[in-house]
Amino acid sequence: MIPRERLMETARKTFRSFGYAPIDTPALEYLEVLSGKGSDETDRQLYHFTDNGGREVGMRFDLTVPLARFAAQHISDLKTPFKRYHIAPVWRGENTQAGRYREFVQCDFDTVGTESVMADIEMVVVIDALMTAIGIERFSIRINNRQVLTGLLEGLGLQDRAVAVLRALDKLPKIGREKTAEEMITVAGASSAQAEAVVRLAECTGSPESVLASLADLTSGSATAQAGIERLAQVVQGAIAGGASPERLQLDVSIARGLDYYTGVIVETFLDDLPSIGSICSGGRYDNLAGLFTKQHLPGIGASLGLDRLLAALEKLGELPGTTATAPVLVTWFDASRRDDYLRLAANLRRLGLGVEVYPEARKLGAQLKYADDKGFGVAIVAGDQEWQSGQVQVKDLKRKIAIATNYSHESPAELRETIAGILEESASPRLADG
Amino acid sequence: MIPRERLMETARKTFRSFGYAPIDTPALEYLEVLSGKGSDETDRQLYHFTDNGGREVGMRFDLTVPLARFAAQHISDLKTPFKRYHIAPVWRGENTQAGRYREFVQCDFDTVGTESVMADIEMVVVIDALMTAIGIERFSIRINNRQVLTGLLEGLGLQDRAVAVLRALDKLPKIGREKTAEEMITVAGASSAQAEAVVRLAECTGSPESVLASLADLTSGSATAQAGIERLAQVVQGAIAGGASPERLQLDVSIARGLDYYTGVIVETFLDDLPSIGSICSGGRYDNLAGLFTKQHLPGIGASLGLDRLLAALEKLGELPGTTATAPVLVTWFDASRRDDYLRLAANLRRLGLGVEVYPEARKLGAQLKYADDKGFGVAIVAGDQEWQSGQVQVKDLKRKIAIATNYSHESPAELRETIAGILEESASPRLADG
Repeated sequence: MIPRERLMETARKTFRSFGYAPIDTPALEYLEVLSGKGSDETDRQLYHFTDNGGREVGMRFDLTVPLARFAAQHISDLKTPFKRYHIAPVWRGENTQAGRYREFVQCDFDTVGTESVMADIEMVVVIDALMTAIGIERFSIRINNRQVLTGLLEGLGLQDRAVAVLRALDKLPKIGREKTAEEMITVAGASSAQAEAVVRLAECTGSPESVLASLADLTSGSATAQAGIERLAQVVQGAIAGGASPERLQLDVSIARGLDYYTGVIVETFLDDLPSIGSICSGGRYDNLAGLFTKQHLPGIGASLGLDRLLAALEKLGELPGTTATAPVLVTWFDASRRDDYLRLAANLRRLGLGVEVYPEARKLGAQLKYADDKGFGVAIVAGDQEWQSGQVQVKDLKRKIAIATNYSHESPAELRETIAGILEESASPRLADG
Repeated sequence: MIPRERLMETARKTFRSFGYAPIDTPALEYLEVLSGKGSDETDRQLYHFTDNGGREVGMRFDLTVPLARFAAQHISDLKTPFKRYHIAPVWRGENTQAGRYREFVQCDFDTVGTESVMADIEMVVVIDALMTAIGIERFSIRINNRQVLTGLLEGLGLQDRAVAVLRALDKLPKIGREKTAEEMITVAGASSAQAEAVVRLAECTGSPESVLASLADLTSGSATAQAGIERLAQVVQGAIAGGASPERLQLDVSIARGLDYYTGVIVETFLDDLPSIGSICSGGRYDNLAGLFTKQHLPGIGASLGLDRLLAALEKLGELPGTTATAPVLVTWFDASRRDDYLRLAANLRRLGLGVEVYPEARKLGAQLKYADDKGFGVAIVAGDQEWQSGQVQVKDLKRKIAIATNYSHESPAELRETIAGILEESASPRLADG
């Protein structure tokens, strides 16, 4: 929970720094709001029941359907653009496995009510800022625009077989170009030239500039595709102006993110050191978020940080802090007549910005230091009657196993604070340890 | 949600600065874990159902029963002292009214596994630190020790009628001393001298020193009461050493906090400006938290911040910020060819620590400024082609309705940052507006 909370706080802080506002919705929605809104699978996995008032209710299975319901209900008060983030648990009654739980947290951010490319750009900039704020340096954001492929398929006369073509294309990284083309021919009824054209488009790689040039060549007949390519160019250029690192942005026409939901720009985010865990932060543009609940046209764009997947990845990469201490300093305590002195010392250090736990009982020092080691404290303060009388306390550096005698009085706690801060800085905790 | 999130963040930060660690437990527990653990009322209000796997499950109605289950299950791994906080929604299927919802958030902190007075003291210090960190100055923490009254009742030979006596005493503030004594006589079977002795004890008021002296006088025959009074004295003295303000601590033997649950020190926290809303933060010491789930003896102490009640109080007192903007600066945008300049400007200001929203569309300036006013932004940046060419932007102070022309280039954003920071400082947002 310690790194999990740090991640959520970093996400909140990042979302807010771009003007997204928090919302929360109830865990329980009327069943009719939830059912039929995801897939057959989400319907099957829905936790639902009749409450004491005879209402059919269910536990939300994502944060998008509640957003759609919320936006449909309140958009005339909220006005557009409506920028919200929502960090909350969702529930799916599925068979659990590593990284898949029946309750898990989603971190969504969305901008509702605009079709502007500025919002597309911002999605990419927010993802870059979020990953950077978390402390991840080696990642890439893959960007696509569904319009490019849509345009190509229109040009090839395959637009009515788009779903089957996309389904085959989705398998490209796994089954390779031959089998993908084969499936397009046998299942989608494409000619081998058509299949080849689609696969070639999806295979464009390289710098954004070279991919954009290749895409333009391969779709020269389609105005839809050209408009999609132009928008991709703007997204990349704008994201770099907005602070994203150019080397982290990749254009990748092969990413599809499901078949029906998204209509424009889509993104996936991969860790360079663990791409196999899948996309950490994914999203895209949709034409009409709340169409199921209202006649008002509400286009939007948004993405979701996969908190649990990212935690699993950081754990695999050995980048989660091992400590279970939330305050780095433990005040040990064995001279019961000095209890109030230990309390004042702790209060003084907290006032100077340090997190300080006081061991609750005046037990043997060894037991208290074992507790400090077990929990991963950075520093323990030890002071017996002799120390109090001489105006000094022992500061134990628990990582390096040394003790530093330091001047301390309740009136002048600054020197003690400096000694502790110095030790904590040297044994700086790994990523996510500090707020 | 904006002040709500701020409150939760402040609570987390405060709890952590004392070494409490976060836990989370699932919303759904096996029904047998939840039922019969609260009151008849919580049993009646429980949301429960049979899941797809045929398991009887229910949604947690508080965070204490899950803590008890969790502690019983994991204490041998966790070791004691186990200090945890838990901020999470709970569900009760009750009839909603102002301040009472079917889903609401609880903020609990507890220290499990120690009977030390140090933990009692810390509970008071944490409450004081929490209220202060939230920005509340005028509050009082009322402290009692159940042992004092228990000792008195033992001395009076009323220990077997304690429940009825306490039930009557709980009504003292509402029905007055006469009727309270009358109920003790008629319902609990006390003599009028006994009833008078109980009421006199509960009526002790004044400075902690004078209350302690009166209590000692009134319970001179009871060793239990004397020990309870001595512990109260230590709690007050220790809490002051630990940083709590003496003028905020009151001893109040009339607070009982339910009849059976607590066994030692108990506290309630009231807003001086709105005491009628009830206790904002309440808790106390219990003998055996996990007795329902394990044979291991797990004494503990903890308290809970009533987040929704505190929000309702702050709203009544007019102390909630009116803004719905999470970033204080809006960058307006109407020269589409300059899009990347607006993006860079926003990124530069964010890098210098300011929250900045960019309006998503290059619409008319009036529409963008109306959005800024509606949402309560502090500052809007306006820059057209002329401004960009002259190396200046207009900084609109939206509260005072003035504009300040300020030098800006992408290479030197510091002056703009200073101008904005100055405006935001002058129009400083109310409590809870900033992290």
